[in-house]
Amino acid sequence: MAALKTSTTWIKGQEFESEHDGNKINVDGDKKNGHGPKALLLSGLAGCSGIDVVDILHKMKVEFSDFSIDVEADQTEEHPKVFKDIQVTYRLKTATDNLEKVKKAINLSLDKYCGVSAMLKKNSAINYTVEILN
Amino acid sequence: MAALKTSTTWIKGQEFESEHDGNKINVDGDKKNGHGPKALLLSGLAGCSGIDVVDILHKMKVEFSDFSIDVEADQTEEHPKVFKDIQVTYRLKTATDNLEKVKKAINLSLDKYCGVSAMLKKNSAINYTVEILN
Repeated sequence: MAALKTSTTWIKGQEFESEHDGNKINVDGDKKNGHGPKALLLSGLAGCSGIDVVDILHKMKVEFSDFSIDVEADQTEEHPKVFKDIQVTYRLKTATDNLEKVKKAINLSLDKYCGVSAMLKKNSAINYTVEILN
Repeated sequence: MAALKTSTTWIKGQEFESEHDGNKINVDGDKKNGHGPKALLLSGLAGCSGIDVVDILHKMKVEFSDFSIDVEADQTEEHPKVFKDIQVTYRLKTATDNLEKVKKAINLSLDKYCGVSAMLKKNSAINYTVEILN
């Protein structure tokens, strides 16, 4: 697989602009004009696992909508501050009896397919819950 | 330290919108309308370490401008695809004889302060080079 590359330019203070394949995001340690850098890891985990879950549920012919993913992590007190356990909440609208299939899709993602999960798990555990919306 | 949290909503296909403290970014596995999820880890590393380096150089009274950071990583072939060694290129305009101070700032960031570096190093090595611009 080709190398991944980002190019990140300092704007001022704690603000940076980071480019990847023509897409640009702002990173801001003060969180005024962009994600804090560490939050990008949580967004990356949500996107990585979310893509897997959508793909696997489609393959399972499971109908769903209104899919969202919250990711939350406490940090250690001492430098370098790293994540303690990561808590992921998967939320989606689907028939209640699809719950086991949804859990299977999530387990496949977090344990087998999602590279972000595989990397972050080397630092801390990742736990999840599923909420089926009515 | 308070918990970090992101809320990520599926748009369509491999596209998601991810919110953190009121800031929104797009994540897209196809990289058409947003960073790929794994690239967010590289942008997070650049932002995290960049913030440290700016801060430390200011404390050292080192004058500089035009600061940018490229981060590049190959990935393993098998699922889950994770980073091989990460290569960081720090580029800045400053007097040539500041090179040792710049390296000291980078080492302090990568080894002591930057939590993203500390987490990603549990998966793969992080190597860097410095380019002083004229």
